[in-house]
This record gives sequence, C-alpha cells and structure tokens, in this order.
Amino acid sequence: MILHRRSLALAALAAALGATAAAQTDPLPSWREGPRRRALLDFVAAVTTQGHADFVPPAGRIAVFDNDGTLWVEQPAYTQLFFILDRIRALAPANPAWPQEALLRAAIAGDMPGVMAGGTQGLLRLAGLAQAGISPEAFQALAAEWLATARDARWNRPYTALVYQPMLEVLALLRAHGFTSFIVSGGGVEFVRAFSEQAYGIPPHRVVGSSFALMPGEEAGRITLTREPRVDFIDDGPGKAVGIARFIGRRPIAAFGNSDGDWHMLRYTTEGPGRRLGMIVHHDDAAREYAYDRQSHVGRLARALDEAPARGWPVISMRDDWARIFPND
Amino acid sequence: MILHRRSLALAALAAALGATAAAQTDPLPSWREGPRRRALLDFVAAVTTQGHADFVPPAGRIAVFDNDGTLWVEQPAYTQLFFILDRIRALAPANPAWPQEALLRAAIAGDMPGVMAGGTQGLLRLAGLAQAGISPEAFQALAAEWLATARDARWNRPYTALVYQPMLEVLALLRAHGFTSFIVSGGGVEFVRAFSEQAYGIPPHRVVGSSFALMPGEEAGRITLTREPRVDFIDDGPGKAVGIARFIGRRPIAAFGNSDGDWHMLRYTTEGPGRRLGMIVHHDDAAREYAYDRQSHVGRLARALDEAPARGWPVISMRDDWARIFPND
Repeated sequence: MILHRRSLALAALAAALGATAAAQTDPLPSWREGPRRRALLDFVAAVTTQGHADFVPPAGRIAVFDNDGTLWVEQPAYTQLFFILDRIRALAPANPAWPQEALLRAAIAGDMPGVMAGGTQGLLRLAGLAQAGISPEAFQALAAEWLATARDARWNRPYTALVYQPMLEVLALLRAHGFTSFIVSGGGVEFVRAFSEQAYGIPPHRVVGSSFALMPGEEAGRITLTREPRVDFIDDGPGKAVGIARFIGRRPIAAFGNSDGDWHMLRYTTEGPGRRLGMIVHHDDAAREYAYDRQSHVGRLARALDEAPARGWPVISMRDDWARIFPND
Repeated sequence: MILHRRSLALAALAAALGATAAAQTDPLPSWREGPRRRALLDFVAAVTTQGHADFVPPAGRIAVFDNDGTLWVEQPAYTQLFFILDRIRALAPANPAWPQEALLRAAIAGDMPGVMAGGTQGLLRLAGLAQAGISPEAFQALAAEWLATARDARWNRPYTALVYQPMLEVLALLRAHGFTSFIVSGGGVEFVRAFSEQAYGIPPHRVVGSSFALMPGEEAGRITLTREPRVDFIDDGPGKAVGIARFIGRRPIAAFGNSDGDWHMLRYTTEGPGRRLGMIVHHDDAAREYAYDRQSHVGRLARALDEAPARGWPVISMRDDWARIFPND
C-alpha cells in the first residue's frame, strides 16, 4: 500500500515534469525511421541520461534554430519581404513622390525582379521605409496583424501555418528534455518575435535576429523608442556566432540550419567540446514543398552541404525523412 | 482512500511546481512588515490571481533588476573595477612599458584616486587592456576564477556573498509566481554572466549588460570570437530601455533599481499600460552596509529619488525595511 501510494505520487511528479507523454507516445511522429531520426533521439538520450558519458546538465542544454527555411517556408521569397512590400503599398498613398524612383515603383507594383534589381542596398532601403519610424511594440503589432491576414499564394494559408511539423516536434522533444531553445535568424528580430511564441512556443527574449538601431527619446512625458532606418546588427553568417555569444552567452550543444548563412552557427556549435549535434534541413521535395540548394537566390546551400559529411552534420532530406511537412497536412 | 491517494498525488504535483513552499512559509522572511513589503506582495498577488482586474498571463510577467547596488554591493567601487585592477596588475609584468603612463601606474599601484582622475575614458582604457583580446568564454572563466578567490576588504567575504538576501527573496517570490526575471546592468554583460546563475539563479541569456564588440575569426580550423577593446553597447540610462527592447523584446511589468542610471528603466517599465511596479533600493544603512545617494560618485541617486513619490515608485529603506542584509548575516 505504501508502495502503491508512493508510485502514484511519483506518477504525478513525472507528469508534472512532462516525462510521461514523452515515454508513452512517439515524440517524433512525423519523422520516418532512419539515420536522421536516430541521430536526434540518440543525441537527446545521450546528453540527458544521468550517468551517460555525454550527460549535460540542464543549464548547458542550449539549442539554436535558424528560422527561414529551417522552421518555416522561405520560398519563393522570405516572408518578411512580402510584409515589407505590402507595407510599402499601404504607405504609398501618403508618399506621392515614391513612384518617381524605379525601386519604389517596382515595390508598389509587386514586381519582384524589379525589387531584386536593387540588390541588398535596395532591400535595406525598402526595409527602412516600410519598418522604421515606429516603436518596436508598434512594429510587432503591425507584423502580427499582417501575419493574421496575409496568405501564401501557393497554399492559400497564413504564413504561420507553413511551419514544419517535424521541426515543431523537435522543439517539443527538446523542451520535454530540459533544453532551452533559441531562434537565431537572419530575419528582423522584431518580425520573428511577432509570431515566435504562438508558432513555436519560443518567447521574444529567446529570439536573436538582425536589427535596426533603436533611438531612445521622450514624447508627451513618456519614454519612447524609435526604430531607425539604420541596421545595427546583421545576424547572418559570422554574425550568428556573434549573436549567440552576445544574446545567449553560452555555446549551444545543438544547432539546426538550412543554408550557408548557418555555416558559422553550425560550426560554432559543433566545434565546442563534448557531444554536439548540427543538422541541416535539405529542401529536396519539390512536390510537397520546394527543391533548392546551390543555385537558389534564397537559402543558398553549397559549402555547408559539401562539408556536412566531414563535419558530422546529418543532412535531413525533407522528401525521405519527413512523413508530413505542415501541421495541417 | 481514493481521496487520500489523490491528495498525495496532488501534494507531489504541488511540490514539483514549487508551490508548497510558497504557500506554507513566509516568502519574504528578511523583509520587515511595512508599505514596501506590502507593495511587493500586493503587486504579485494582483497580477498572478486569475480573475483579478490586474491579472497578467505568465508570458507577460517580466521583471528586470539592476545589479550593482540593487542585487549586490557597489561600494566603495564597482566590483568589476576591482577585477580590472587585479587583471592589470597580473598582466603588468608582461607589459613593461605600462608604468610610463600615469593612469597605468595608478592602476598597478591600486591608487584609486589616480585611477579615477582618468575619468570615463581612463576607465574604458583600463577595461580594454584588462578584458579584451580573448574570447567571451575565456573571459567568463577568468572572471569566475577571480570571483572565487577575491574578497571584499570590509567584510573579508567573496563578492558573491555580498548579495542582498531580501532581493534574493524577491527573485524567488517572482520565480514561484511564474515571472521571468532579467538582470539589466550597466556592468559588462560577460562579467555578470560569470556569476548570475550561481548567485541569483539567472541564466546567462537573461543578463543584459554593457558590452565590448565581438570580432569573429578563425584559428586552427575553428571559429573564434574575440573581445575587442571597443565598447559597442552601454546598458545604462536610456541604454537600459534600449537593452530591454533589444534583448527581452517585451516591456517589463516590474523593475528594481537603485540609482539615476535606472531612471529610464523604471520609467519605461512603469509607463506601460496596466498594473506596474517600480522600486528603488535606497542605501541608508551605514552601519550594516553603506549610506549614500545624491553625492555619491558610484550609484548616484537624486532625480529618481525626487520623482519617486509622484511616479508611485516605493523607495525601499535598507535600514527600516530589511531585517537582514546578506545571506550569511
């Protein structure tokens, strides 16, 4: 009887810690059997099993995820670019001089090749016009409002419905095993923060991203912060290692990316001592999503793909490894 | 019998969630009865009681704490300055030209007025010489090693023993009520991260602070990050509002500070909509700690103190409100 009572109490304890669900059901139902699924489960078991040679205490269980192309769709263009173009169109009537400029004419017309012809400088100029001059809070509200109504043309679904179900399962698996996960995105930090909590269960303070400078001021007796149309941090390439050190302050033990922009993050993570996991999402499923790597203007993947075997980074085949792509499939 | 079993299970559940201790014992044993203790408990009860007009869901329960003078002692000088001077002395033999410079002679001799004569520029120069040229990880290890051995002259205790017991109780109270707490310090972010988890239970990613630029590079086939002797962010004054927006991404509902460097943070927090709490630690206990405010070169408190009544910021009297100052008292 004593034993029975104790086991009941232990069961409640286990439930409170979220362990029961993980033990009773498959934590990765959208992952097909194979080496990538096994790499994930083996890694998590190794670093979270007390007494295992690779055991890592919870404080060290830091995982980082790229966003565009790793957690949600990034084709035919980054979602934030669609947001920027919609904003430009919405602001155009109040800015009658804009159409005199070729770049802005292209943006207002939704002419993507015309927009791309402006290069990085052109994109940053559009980003500044569309996204600056307001507070981070007002910007997040705008982005959230847009995300609630805008729809991807191919699937006719909100962009936040185009997150990858198998990656949501990885996030949940890590959460259930005491990991703290972060998004480390080349996208704008406030844009990602506008949906990260709802879409991924990742709160704003665990999103690292690119940013505009914030200018403090005062208006009507209140402190104000205003987004300036001036980039102060690019969280891409080597910037991802810098962003991790600056915002997280601890080297991750697991990293997930999909492009050469994640190469530094994958290396910074897996070059640390002890057991590490670096994984690449390879877009090789044109039927269910997209197929692209070396030649893509968005999410180009070449160097990281070539080096993956030597660096021990499992390459996830969306076609072979994922039984399901989106939550609503 | 069924009920008995269920209550056992519930007790285990409650213990797992840390609720039992909070319900059974006084959460603020080092706080004397009075308006400041009541302000704290009333605020926490209001924002965490479902159905209360001021209820805030857990995701919005963000609290921010200044460090120097709010969570630990900052007199007779910031602890990090003692670290910098010890580092300069340790590095001096390898830098024979240093004593030709008055500032460095003063630093090596531990001549504090001589060091202060160099002003902010002098301090930043010493900070750069003492703390740059290495990785954030190596720097944190150095700082942790120093903190493990260095001792405050007045109490002959490690600096990490000079944290304020009543504030540890506030951190624990908030933690037990679903808050996420952050340190927002004018000190160097990696210095604070070296002890925040052990001293306060605050992991590195929840420390916002001033920082040197980080330079990414590569050495011996590995990604490197190197601290440059160049400040890239000052997390003080208006910078605290910027740091909160940049790192936390959500306006806090509670802020704790002790100096005019926290005025913007207190305002930014308490100017938000809904119920807010801004509190000031007033150092008015020369016998048990220090007494200083308007005239102090460290932790000057004038404007925030003058405006506290009108802004509704309770001012904590260390002498009257705190029954105990340090954990080992």
